[in-house]
Amino acid sequence: MSGVWGNNLKLSIFGESHGKGIGVVIDGLPAGFEIDFEFIDKEMRRRAPGRSKIASQRKESDSFDIISGYFNNKTTGTPLCATIQNNDSRSNDYDKIKSLLRPGHADYTGYVKYSSFNDHRGGGHFSGRLTAPLVFAGAIANQILMKKGIVIGSHILSIGHIQDKSLDFINVDDNTLIEIKEKDFPTIDDEKGNRMKKLIEEVRMAGDSIGGIVETAIVNLQAGLGEPFFDSVESKLSQLLFSIPGVKGVEFGMGFGITRLKGSQANDEYYIENQEIRTYTNNNGGILGGITNGMPTIFRVAIKPTPSISKIQKTVDIKNMENAQILIEGRHDPCIVPRVVPVVEAVSALAILDLFMEHGGIING
Amino acid sequence: MSGVWGNNLKLSIFGESHGKGIGVVIDGLPAGFEIDFEFIDKEMRRRAPGRSKIASQRKESDSFDIISGYFNNKTTGTPLCATIQNNDSRSNDYDKIKSLLRPGHADYTGYVKYSSFNDHRGGGHFSGRLTAPLVFAGAIANQILMKKGIVIGSHILSIGHIQDKSLDFINVDDNTLIEIKEKDFPTIDDEKGNRMKKLIEEVRMAGDSIGGIVETAIVNLQAGLGEPFFDSVESKLSQLLFSIPGVKGVEFGMGFGITRLKGSQANDEYYIENQEIRTYTNNNGGILGGITNGMPTIFRVAIKPTPSISKIQKTVDIKNMENAQILIEGRHDPCIVPRVVPVVEAVSALAILDLFMEHGGIING
Amino acid sequence: MSGVWGNNLKLSIFGESHGKGIGVVIDGLPAGFEIDFEFIDKEMRRRAPGRSKIASQRKESDSFDIISGYFNNKTTGTPLCATIQNNDSRSNDYDKIKSLLRPGHADYTGYVKYSSFNDHRGGGHFSGRLTAPLVFAGAIANQILMKKGIVIGSHILSIGHIQDKSLDFINVDDNTLIEIKEKDFPTIDDEKGNRMKKLIEEVRMAGDSIGGIVETAIVNLQAGLGEPFFDSVESKLSQLLFSIPGVKGVEFGMGFGITRLKGSQANDEYYIENQEIRTYTNNNGGILGGITNGMPTIFRVAIKPTPSISKIQKTVDIKNMENAQILIEGRHDPCIVPRVVPVVEAVSALAILDLFMEHGGIING
Amino acid sequence: MSGVWGNNLKLSIFGESHGKGIGVVIDGLPAGFEIDFEFIDKEMRRRAPGRSKIASQRKESDSFDIISGYFNNKTTGTPLCATIQNNDSRSNDYDKIKSLLRPGHADYTGYVKYSSFNDHRGGGHFSGRLTAPLVFAGAIANQILMKKGIVIGSHILSIGHIQDKSLDFINVDDNTLIEIKEKDFPTIDDEKGNRMKKLIEEVRMAGDSIGGIVETAIVNLQAGLGEPFFDSVESKLSQLLFSIPGVKGVEFGMGFGITRLKGSQANDEYYIENQEIRTYTNNNGGILGGITNGMPTIFRVAIKPTPSISKIQKTVDIKNMENAQILIEGRHDPCIVPRVVPVVEAVSALAILDLFMEHGGIING
Repeated sequence: MSGVWGNNLKLSIFGESHGKGIGVVIDGLPAGFEIDFEFIDKEMRRRAPGRSKIASQRKESDSFDIISGYFNNKTTGTPLCATIQNNDSRSNDYDKIKSLLRPGHADYTGYVKYSSFNDHRGGGHFSGRLTAPLVFAGAIANQILMKKGIVIGSHILSIGHIQDKSLDFINVDDNTLIEIKEKDFPTIDDEKGNRMKKLIEEVRMAGDSIGGIVETAIVNLQAGLGEPFFDSVESKLSQLLFSIPGVKGVEFGMGFGITRLKGSQANDEYYIENQEIRTYTNNNGGILGGITNGMPTIFRVAIKPTPSISKIQKTVDIKNMENAQILIEGRHDPCIVPRVVPVVEAVSALAILDLFMEHGGIING
Repeated sequence: MSGVWGNNLKLSIFGESHGKGIGVVIDGLPAGFEIDFEFIDKEMRRRAPGRSKIASQRKESDSFDIISGYFNNKTTGTPLCATIQNNDSRSNDYDKIKSLLRPGHADYTGYVKYSSFNDHRGGGHFSGRLTAPLVFAGAIANQILMKKGIVIGSHILSIGHIQDKSLDFINVDDNTLIEIKEKDFPTIDDEKGNRMKKLIEEVRMAGDSIGGIVETAIVNLQAGLGEPFFDSVESKLSQLLFSIPGVKGVEFGMGFGITRLKGSQANDEYYIENQEIRTYTNNNGGILGGITNGMPTIFRVAIKPTPSISKIQKTVDIKNMENAQILIEGRHDPCIVPRVVPVVEAVSALAILDLFMEHGGIING
Repeated sequence: MSGVWGNNLKLSIFGESHGKGIGVVIDGLPAGFEIDFEFIDKEMRRRAPGRSKIASQRKESDSFDIISGYFNNKTTGTPLCATIQNNDSRSNDYDKIKSLLRPGHADYTGYVKYSSFNDHRGGGHFSGRLTAPLVFAGAIANQILMKKGIVIGSHILSIGHIQDKSLDFINVDDNTLIEIKEKDFPTIDDEKGNRMKKLIEEVRMAGDSIGGIVETAIVNLQAGLGEPFFDSVESKLSQLLFSIPGVKGVEFGMGFGITRLKGSQANDEYYIENQEIRTYTNNNGGILGGITNGMPTIFRVAIKPTPSISKIQKTVDIKNMENAQILIEGRHDPCIVPRVVPVVEAVSALAILDLFMEHGGIING
Repeated sequence: MSGVWGNNLKLSIFGESHGKGIGVVIDGLPAGFEIDFEFIDKEMRRRAPGRSKIASQRKESDSFDIISGYFNNKTTGTPLCATIQNNDSRSNDYDKIKSLLRPGHADYTGYVKYSSFNDHRGGGHFSGRLTAPLVFAGAIANQILMKKGIVIGSHILSIGHIQDKSLDFINVDDNTLIEIKEKDFPTIDDEKGNRMKKLIEEVRMAGDSIGGIVETAIVNLQAGLGEPFFDSVESKLSQLLFSIPGVKGVEFGMGFGITRLKGSQANDEYYIENQEIRTYTNNNGGILGGITNGMPTIFRVAIKPTPSISKIQKTVDIKNMENAQILIEGRHDPCIVPRVVPVVEAVSALAILDLFMEHGGIING
C-alpha cells in the first residue's frame, strides 16, 4: 500500500505538493514521551528549501500543526497526527506544462497508475515535499533513540565526481556524528565540501543539476536487532530509503566494493575487548545475517540529479500523444543531496525504532 | 517478522540447514494454475550445489514434496505448502566449531538474537539453503508472469575485478534473457565468463573465496506498477533482495553511477514510437517515482565473497569468551554468485507478482 | 496496532474528543471516483449528536476538511485525509472528575494502557466521537459499493425489551433497506419504533440509559467473497464491529439462536431459480465457510447502554487510590443505538470494499 | 489473506482434509522455550474425533511432525513448522457426491471462490480438520501464557435447549478452569452434562445434529492489553473465533443480554481491594474500550449444528445445474461443540499471546 508503513510503529503519510497540505499519522509511539520541538524544527530546517543559493528558492513554512496524540506536553500513546499547510505554491507554473511529461519525474508513471486523475501540480503526491512529514516523524523517532544513546548521522560522501573521505567504519562515534550534523554542508573534509558547493553552483549557473551519495552511520546500536529474512536490517532500511524520491542505490558496509574482495579480506574477524565482542574490520557494515552485530551500522545512498533542469528537453505531450519539447520554469534545486541528508536519517530512525519495538525494547516512555 | 512476507501473495518460509527439512507456504496463488514442475526442477538445479568443481560438493536432493494447495494437477487457490527434506547433512563438521564464531557468518548475531538457542549447525535458519524454498516459490511466480509475457533474466556482471558487459538497458528483450538463462555460467560475453570461472578456480585452490555482481532485467512489464512511497518497486524488490544471504548492495538503472551525471544526462527523455511512450535512455532502470514506466526494469545486486574459507581466521570462543582461531572444514563454495542468480530472479518474480495482484491483475488462473 | 486497519483499503484514524480535531487517512481508494458529499453529510448527520431530545445535546459541527487525495472533484488514488475540528468541547466538565474512573467507560483501561498519559477529557481517543471519521470513510466506501448495486442497510431490532420484527432473511432487497435508512428512527414497524422512543425518553428522565440491537443486511453481494480462515467475512466484519465503542456481541444469520436448532432445521437447502443457486432459508446469514453465498448477508450487533448516566455511582479515585463516588455531569445520550446504526453500516462498507479489492474487483473508478 | 494471521506472533496454516497433510508455521515464538508435548497431545486428543459414541468414528492419528524451529528440546526462535499427515481418509465417500452441494457446508462457496479448482474432498481446506494445527499452535501459546499464570478455560454452556449454569464472572479462577478442563464432557453441572450427552445421542440416532454454546474465561490477565480501535481485545478474539468452522456468534460479558439492561445495571462499578482496582460486577467481560481491565475476560461462542446429517436434503447438482437430492454417507459428528472447546481455547491463547507480545511482554523465553 502506498502510504502506510511499519509493524509496531506505523506511519501513514498523505498530501500533495500543491493541495491543502501534507502530513503524517504516527501510530504506536510510546506514551509519556516529551517531544523536543526545537529539535524537530532544526531537522525540518535541514530539509527545507530556500535556505541558500544552492537550494530551491521556494519558501515553505513547514510549520507543523499537531492534531492529536499529544497532551500536556507528552505523547499520549494514541495516534499522533501532524499536518503541514501548503501556502507558497504557484500552481500556475505547472498548469502551463500540464500535459508535457517532465523527464526524470513521476509525471508519466503517476498518470498511468492513477488513470490521469492524480494531482499533477508540482509532482503532487510524488513531490519531494512529502519528505517533510517523514522528517517530522523521524525526528521524533530519533529523539527516542537518542535517549538510548543511539545516534544516527550522515555526511555527503560525494557530489558528482568530488568525493569526501569515508567515515571510519570501526571508530565512528556519536560525537563525530553530532559534529557533522551541525555543519551547514555536512562533509568530513570541509575543503571537499567547498569544492562540492562550488560544483553545485556551477551546475546551477548552467541550468543543470547534479547527484551525489550520502553515507550514514548508526552508532551504539545493540547486537541482535533484525531478522534473518524478510525483515533483515538491510531489508527494513532499504525499503524506506528507496521510498525517498531520487534514491537509486543502497549499499551496506563495503557494499558493491565487497564484490572485488576475497573472503579472507572481506570477513570481519572477531576479537574481545573489555568483555565485548568486536570485529577488526567492518566490511559488513555492522550487519550479519540481517542482524546487527554491535559494530557501527554503515550504509550509503545514491541520489540522482534533480530531474527539474532549466534546459529544453525532449518529451511527449500525453494529451495529444505527440512528440514535444519542454522547458521547466519555476524554482528547483540544482542538487537535492544536502536536503536528502536529514530525510535519510529520519527514515533510518523510523526503521530502527520499529525493529527495537519488535524486541519489546521500548514501552511507554 | 522473520519469515512472513507479502501483501496479496504471502510467503512463510521455515527450516534449518541441518534440521528435518525446510519449506515454504505460499498463500494467495490463483486457483486453477497448472504448475510446470520441470521448470521448477530446472530452477532448483540452477541453485543447487554440487554441480561442478566451482560449487560446494554437498549433494542436496532438493526434491520438494507438495503437502497442500495442489489437486488434480492444478493449484486450488488455498495455501500451497512445499517441504524439502534434509538428508546429506554432516552435522559433526559443525559440532567441532560450535562455540567458535565463523567470521562473516551469522553465528554471532544469531547467537545474540536467539539467546544462544538457535540451531547453529550449518548456519541453521540463516543458511543459504533456505533460498531453496524461495527458488521454489519464485519459480511458480515466474511461470505465472511468463504467461503474461513478462520475463526476468540475469547475468553475472562481475566476479571480483572481471567484468562482463552490461545488458542493453533499452533493447534487452525476452529472447536475450532466455538465451542467457540457458547458459551454465550466465554471462553475455562467454570469454569473460571463462575468465571468471578461472578466477573462481584459482580462488578455490587458494582456499579463499570471491564475490560478484548480478545484473537483472525484467521485460514486458506494463507501466503503472508500484507505489509512490513505501511500496515503490525499488522498495519491494530491495526488501526481498536484501533477504538473500550475502547481498550487500542493490541499485536500479545507473544506480550509484547516476550520482556522477548531470540532470541533463541522467533524465530519460521521452518519445513516441508506435503509439507507445518510450525513453531514449533508461538510466532510471524503468522506474520513476517508484512506479514502472514500461521500459525494462534493470537492477544490480552485490554479493559478498562466501564467508566460509579454508584459512585460519581470528575469532572468539563465545562459551569461554576468549580470543581464538578457527579453521572451517567441510564443503563450501568458493563463489556463490552463480547460485545466487536464480534466487535473485525468484524473489524478483515474487515481488512483481505481488505488485501485480495489488492491481487486481491476476485472479484465479 | 491501534488505529491502522485493512489489507487493500487501509484506514488510519486519529484524534481525541477534546483535542484539536479528529480524522482519518484512507489509503487505496480507486482513482477517478467522484464523491457525493451530500451523501456523506447525510450519513454524518445520522451519527451526529444533538438532533433531538433523545440524543446528546452537544452540538458538533462534524464538518470535515479534505486535506489530500481529492483533485478536480475526483479521488486521485493517493491517500485521502479528512479532518474534523473539535470546537464545542467543554473540557471543564471533565476536569472535575479527572481522577474518578467513570464506570463502563475506558477511563481505567486507558489510564493503565497509556501509563496515565492519555487524554482523559471526554474519553479522549476512546470517545464515540472517533466514529465520525469512520462514518466519513464508510460513506465513501458505501458509494463505491452502491455503484455496483450493493446496498447495506440496518434497522433497530430492539431497545431494551422492545423488539422490532426481523428483516426478511430471504427477500430483503435494496428498496426495503433504502426505505428504512430514510426514517428518522429506523425500525421496520413504526409502532415499535414509537415505543422504543418512549422508552428512551423514560430512561432519560430517570437519569439512566439503555442498550439495544442493530440488525443489518447487505444485499446484492456476489458469491465468493471472503476467505476460509482468518479473513472470513465474519472475521473481517466482526473485527471492525467490535472496534465500535459499546459493542458487546456480534452474530450472523440465526446467530446464537442457531445453537438450538437441529442440523435438519439449520441447514440452508439449495435450489435453482432463474439459473441462479439460492437457498430456501438463510440461517447462515449468507456466509458459508467464511465466504458469501449470494444470499443476503445478515448480522446483528449488541450495543450496551451508554455508560454516562446521571446517577451517583461507586468508583475509585485513582490518584489517591481510595474508594469514591462519582456523578457525571455534562451532555450524554440516554441511548446511543440510533447513532450507532450509521457507524455499523460504515464499517461494514469498509470491510466489504476491502474484500472486494482483494478480488481485484475494483480498480481505478 | 486466507491462511496468514498475526502481528507479532504469525501463523500460516495449510492443508486439505484429504490431501497429503495439514500443518502450521508459527513465526515469532520466543527462543529457548521448552514445549511440553504431553500437554499438546492432551489438547489434540480433546479435539480429535473417534473418542466416543458421540463423536465421528474417523480415526485420525493427529500425530504431528516438527519440521523446524525446535532444537535441543527448545524453541529456536525461528519459524516452527509442524505437519500432520492424513492417513485414514476414505475419499471415495466424497467422490459419489462430488457435484452435489452439501447444505450448510462450504462446498458451494468454495466452488465459486476457487472457480471449481478447490479440493472438494471432505471439505478440503474448509474442513474442521484444519483446526488441528490451530490446536497445536494454541497449545504452545497456552503453555507460554500459563508460565505467566494466565489460564484459559471453557465449559459447554448449552447444547440445544439444555443449559449449564454460567461461569462466575467475578470469582472464576484458574483452579476452577483447570478442573473443568479435566472433564471428559466439560460442564460445570455434571447432571446438565449428562442430559446434554443424552440429547446428542438422541439426535445421532435420529440421523440429525445439534449445536451449542461454549463459554470461556481467561483469568489472571493483566489490565492494559488491547487497543482502542482495530485491535481491541474483542476484535482480536472475534477475528480468530469466527475463523473456526461453524461459529456464528461471539459475545463478551453479558453480550446480547446487556442490551436489555439499564446503564445503572450494566455499568461495572469500581472498588479497591488489597490495593487493587476491581469491579463489583463484570458485565463487560473484563474489557472496556477494547482493553483488559484485570477482571476475568469472559466470552461465549455460538456453534451451529454439524451440517453433515444422515437425512435426505434438497440441493443442487452444480455440474448439471439442476435441482437434486443428497444423502451424505460417511462419518460425522452429531455435535461438534465438545470438540470445538479446545479450538476456542487455542485461538484465544494465540490472540492473547500476540497482544502480549505487542506490549513487549514476552521476549526470548
